[in-house]
Amino acid sequence: MSNTQAVLTKEEIADWFMGLQDRICAGLEQADGKALFREDLWIREKGGGGRTRVISHGGVFEKGGVNYSAVYGPTPDAILKALNLSASDFYATGVSIVIHPNNPLVPIIHMNVRYFEMTNGQWWFGGGIDLTPHYVVPEDAAFFHKTLKASCDKHLSSFYPEFKKWADDYFYIPHRKETRGIGGIFFDRLDATRSLSKQALFGFVQEIGNTFLPVYTSLVAKKKDLAYTDTQKQWQLLRRGRYVEFNLVYDKGTRFGLDTDGRTESILMSLPETASWLYDHQTQPGSAEEKTLLLLKKGIEWSTL
Amino acid sequence: MSNTQAVLTKEEIADWFMGLQDRICAGLEQADGKALFREDLWIREKGGGGRTRVISHGGVFEKGGVNYSAVYGPTPDAILKALNLSASDFYATGVSIVIHPNNPLVPIIHMNVRYFEMTNGQWWFGGGIDLTPHYVVPEDAAFFHKTLKASCDKHLSSFYPEFKKWADDYFYIPHRKETRGIGGIFFDRLDATRSLSKQALFGFVQEIGNTFLPVYTSLVAKKKDLAYTDTQKQWQLLRRGRYVEFNLVYDKGTRFGLDTDGRTESILMSLPETASWLYDHQTQPGSAEEKTLLLLKKGIEWSTL
Repeated sequence: MSNTQAVLTKEEIADWFMGLQDRICAGLEQADGKALFREDLWIREKGGGGRTRVISHGGVFEKGGVNYSAVYGPTPDAILKALNLSASDFYATGVSIVIHPNNPLVPIIHMNVRYFEMTNGQWWFGGGIDLTPHYVVPEDAAFFHKTLKASCDKHLSSFYPEFKKWADDYFYIPHRKETRGIGGIFFDRLDATRSLSKQALFGFVQEIGNTFLPVYTSLVAKKKDLAYTDTQKQWQLLRRGRYVEFNLVYDKGTRFGLDTDGRTESILMSLPETASWLYDHQTQPGSAEEKTLLLLKKGIEWSTL
Repeated sequence: MSNTQAVLTKEEIADWFMGLQDRICAGLEQADGKALFREDLWIREKGGGGRTRVISHGGVFEKGGVNYSAVYGPTPDAILKALNLSASDFYATGVSIVIHPNNPLVPIIHMNVRYFEMTNGQWWFGGGIDLTPHYVVPEDAAFFHKTLKASCDKHLSSFYPEFKKWADDYFYIPHRKETRGIGGIFFDRLDATRSLSKQALFGFVQEIGNTFLPVYTSLVAKKKDLAYTDTQKQWQLLRRGRYVEFNLVYDKGTRFGLDTDGRTESILMSLPETASWLYDHQTQPGSAEEKTLLLLKKGIEWSTL
């Protein structure tokens, strides 16, 4: 790596992530209008710790978490094995968010930005942002993807198409043959093999982190006061059941956290307050629920709608 | 294997399992007093199929499944790898049950009995039965374990202690440091290396299958009409959340089913109709909920209480 890249330290990255957490929590409290985040500081026995912030029973948000952490120490065996790394100490920092709204017409959102570094010199950025509407509204899906594309395009024109496909593949529930939602972008192992410098990659990650608040609060403002029916609320609980299935069965962050003895309450803050499963639930032909299922597919080019 | 063992065919075992499913469904309908099981027949593309039977919105049972299946064909790679088997065709048949009651004072129950055979001559029985009370009542836990011990003791005195410990270890949620419930018995790979003949092992499995209905309906009858509070109902939803965590993260049957493209609705019938997650929920000191948590531990010798 060149000297200019070496200027960017893990501490600078971690500091920026803490600031991002602060700004996002403040923005979400404003959007909620009622509840405030509760903060729990935690220490990791083997090195590092975090700031878990949870909002619940708000005016808009039923349950949500905005977590910051910076952890380090000997790399857990499970991670060495999964990532095919040789034994070395690691440092990992990031912000992870999942928000479950009260109103079924407001989408669930997830965002994660993270930085990983090994004492052997390896480093990379990862992250993503994806939207899970209980009811897919093509106009909103297009707005979401166009916003993400614009953020990506400021950095590298190949990012959006690559990371959009990555999200389609990642946020997929094979046993349901459904995507979790309308996707977004997902990226991992962005490192020195990319055509951008470390500083430029960090710039991209900052861009994504900064995109979260305006894109989500815009959707929240548009939807939060819409009236909804009992049928729509029941459908929301079923879709949350799918969210639970994805997170507990497939999500790599969740499984790594549980496998490496992470802080359970911080990891599982992503689960909704309530969820439901009905045996062999079928949607009514022509219903909004059926239309949503038909749009939970890979490969829909929302940004060109 | 000797000729007398060869007399017991997979078809005989499968037939007995179908009959067991019939008797259990009839017994549970009687215990419920209101709802009847709905039956779905399904065919497995690569060989075999099953009879899924689900009860819902009953007088006693909110959601429950009693599934029979007999599937066969080339052994899926995931199973070969997990069980360290050489490529061969397989045949698997069994009955699998999970019942979620309405009343939080009635326990959740799970039972599974199964037979697996490979065309290379390998065969074994597996299964288990375990109880998940939302509130642990030592007297009921002792009754449950004493009944299982009596059933085991008719066959081999080492079975209960071995299989009770196996259940403690299997039905454990590491990230919560809690057992799923009060355990029961769990066993797998009961084969020719055991000191009992194949016929005798089948006799043991039949005994366990036959124990399900009297032991559960006895607990149901004792509890189903007890009044309960909103606090108890809310606690039930949280405990169901733990049940979901165990089944989706750790349960081998569930993961194999999802990994091998099994029938999703039959596999996930084990999930409750509703479940809940609260961030960092704490029980009140001295409460019944706290007492229950203190009893969700491995190694409690319920049968000697």
